[in-house]
Amino acid sequence: MARKCSTSSRILTQLYRKFQRAAKEMAGYPLSQCFDYSQLFRFLKFHINNLGDPFAKHWYYRINTLKIERKVIDRFAKLFHAPKGGYWGYVTNGGTEGNLYGLYAARELHPEGVVFYSDQTHYSVPKCLRLLRMEGVKVKSLPNGEVDCKALQDAIVADGRTPIIFANIGTTMKGAVDNVVRIREILTDLKVKKFYIHCDAAFFGMILPFLPQLEAEPFDFRMGIDSIAISGHKMIGTPFPCGVVLARKSNVQELGAHVKYVDVRDNTITGSRNGLTPLFLWQELICAGHGKMKKLVEDCMELAGYAVKKFSEAGIGAWRNKNSMIVVFPRPSEKTVLKWQLAVEDGIAHLITLPHMSHRVIDCIVKQVVSDVKRGIHGRKAHLP
Amino acid sequence: MARKCSTSSRILTQLYRKFQRAAKEMAGYPLSQCFDYSQLFRFLKFHINNLGDPFAKHWYYRINTLKIERKVIDRFAKLFHAPKGGYWGYVTNGGTEGNLYGLYAARELHPEGVVFYSDQTHYSVPKCLRLLRMEGVKVKSLPNGEVDCKALQDAIVADGRTPIIFANIGTTMKGAVDNVVRIREILTDLKVKKFYIHCDAAFFGMILPFLPQLEAEPFDFRMGIDSIAISGHKMIGTPFPCGVVLARKSNVQELGAHVKYVDVRDNTITGSRNGLTPLFLWQELICAGHGKMKKLVEDCMELAGYAVKKFSEAGIGAWRNKNSMIVVFPRPSEKTVLKWQLAVEDGIAHLITLPHMSHRVIDCIVKQVVSDVKRGIHGRKAHLP
Repeated sequence: MARKCSTSSRILTQLYRKFQRAAKEMAGYPLSQCFDYSQLFRFLKFHINNLGDPFAKHWYYRINTLKIERKVIDRFAKLFHAPKGGYWGYVTNGGTEGNLYGLYAARELHPEGVVFYSDQTHYSVPKCLRLLRMEGVKVKSLPNGEVDCKALQDAIVADGRTPIIFANIGTTMKGAVDNVVRIREILTDLKVKKFYIHCDAAFFGMILPFLPQLEAEPFDFRMGIDSIAISGHKMIGTPFPCGVVLARKSNVQELGAHVKYVDVRDNTITGSRNGLTPLFLWQELICAGHGKMKKLVEDCMELAGYAVKKFSEAGIGAWRNKNSMIVVFPRPSEKTVLKWQLAVEDGIAHLITLPHMSHRVIDCIVKQVVSDVKRGIHGRKAHLP
Repeated sequence: MARKCSTSSRILTQLYRKFQRAAKEMAGYPLSQCFDYSQLFRFLKFHINNLGDPFAKHWYYRINTLKIERKVIDRFAKLFHAPKGGYWGYVTNGGTEGNLYGLYAARELHPEGVVFYSDQTHYSVPKCLRLLRMEGVKVKSLPNGEVDCKALQDAIVADGRTPIIFANIGTTMKGAVDNVVRIREILTDLKVKKFYIHCDAAFFGMILPFLPQLEAEPFDFRMGIDSIAISGHKMIGTPFPCGVVLARKSNVQELGAHVKYVDVRDNTITGSRNGLTPLFLWQELICAGHGKMKKLVEDCMELAGYAVKKFSEAGIGAWRNKNSMIVVFPRPSEKTVLKWQLAVEDGIAHLITLPHMSHRVIDCIVKQVVSDVKRGIHGRKAHLP
């Protein structure tokens, strides 16, 4: 037993050190490593469970953070201009659960609906469609990564069934935002009466609302969307995946079931739900105030501009979309990709200037990419849009 | 800002105290409050993400606990006698995700299959069926809570389509175990060639394998089941919901998709996955050794016996199923239900003698129930089976 304990303690120490190193060299995934929840560690002594609907009355299991969860949902609703008193939502285990929920709600409203999504959509979406037994139509994207609205229009016309639009508010690889305003115009022009719009704002959902002067077209409930999924672990930063899903209340009222033995209504996907994650989101979005996220986003955008400039000065064709901290550049050597945990797809790679990144790290990466280029490992252009 | 900080600190202190009280008075739900993961708190500094298939090669995102997750899966596989090299699984966000996965795998194998489940099945199962667009047939249960095998046989014959059996290894309310051995016999007798058996062992999955001399019929892979879902937060105890799903490898190989930008295969439901929970399960099931769980289960069984005896001595007709720590008794007053966070359904209530319970707490509950009886609030019998 004593040996077992010392072995496991050694394994944990090694793992901790490995993570310390890895966190400093993590440039490619939208997973912030910059957060401090130490004031909440004591809550890991309890099993906190937010079973069922956060807005339903709860009587029995008292170790829950449902009140705080409701505050978090309200905060998100305000950020995305959800109609007052007309929204519903819950804290999820991550972006996929939020997207699954949005698509599920869409299907229950439009059982014969077809999901239209761009070829830059996250791989989990076809997975969700298969799970939900829904049909999907993949639409081509523009070179910068956003959906080709002309192709989308043609696809909707050709199909003829109720369109369920899956809009990317920040694509995974190129950080492009689908033009929801234009999509709404298309639906109006086509005189489509029944439709549904779900926004996957996993990463950019916690960026765009904090930009000082948002020049981007609005994508939220003001534009008539029906639901939106946001991740908590991407821009805000949390120890493990979490997120929020928001939907129009009238759309999801029929998805619930009353559960006798806990006397609650449950219209979530998971039922028993993590009660710690609402505390994370509450700390960062409510206690810390709007200013903190605003400052974070500003700094990240500045750093993204710096990265593009540095690449450009070194003769490397890097680029980023408007309001995006995802910097795309030509795929470097495997060694560079592995060291900096870069995301790659075909001929391109990207880095993301998240809060844990620094000018120094950008300099190191640019230097290594330049060295790869000099050794002729790849071309100089990253499929510029 | 200073005021904001002191307000939030006050809210957290109040919440912590509320949870301390509530944890001492939590008798009704299968959610253990007895665990200590303080050696792992430091890992909440990182975002640990076990994206995709735990058994696939992983190159890029290095802050993961996939190696430990595989060890945890192997441990569960051994406990449930999964065929060597013939299983697959992952650490989930809880029982519902595991059941959803099992039903999804069943549907992909048998697209026209129909799910048979007893009327004592957890409410989340019809919810999963709706999500998956699957058909279900509810079968009546025996008074002790296990599925009525005769009724199940009749239902399978009457329906005629491929049966997907959803077996409860411990029902929520009465703690009854469906007789998987008998179910297999029925399928053999009926000469059913194609079928699927999923076991929901959310709570009892971490009890039955640790019983000193298991007199119960085996329910695991030896009996030809196809998949099983187990919760981590019920008997083991974790700060928030988690679990494990195990399936025959050959059944789920086609469920995955290769994800280019992270270069992994993903055949999980959630994709980005909590990397902290495998550490919890590893600490309790591997580092602590078989003996710890065995001792826990023994003590809980002893306490369940004590509770039935105490009720009986007080003239209250309480009972429990064989190998169950769920003690069923007549529904007491609402005040008693609220104080002890009891689970109730129609005329019955139950308490669960989990590791955080004690003889003293049982004495208090029995006393309060007896007082309710004397005041004529309810009857003396709890629908004895």
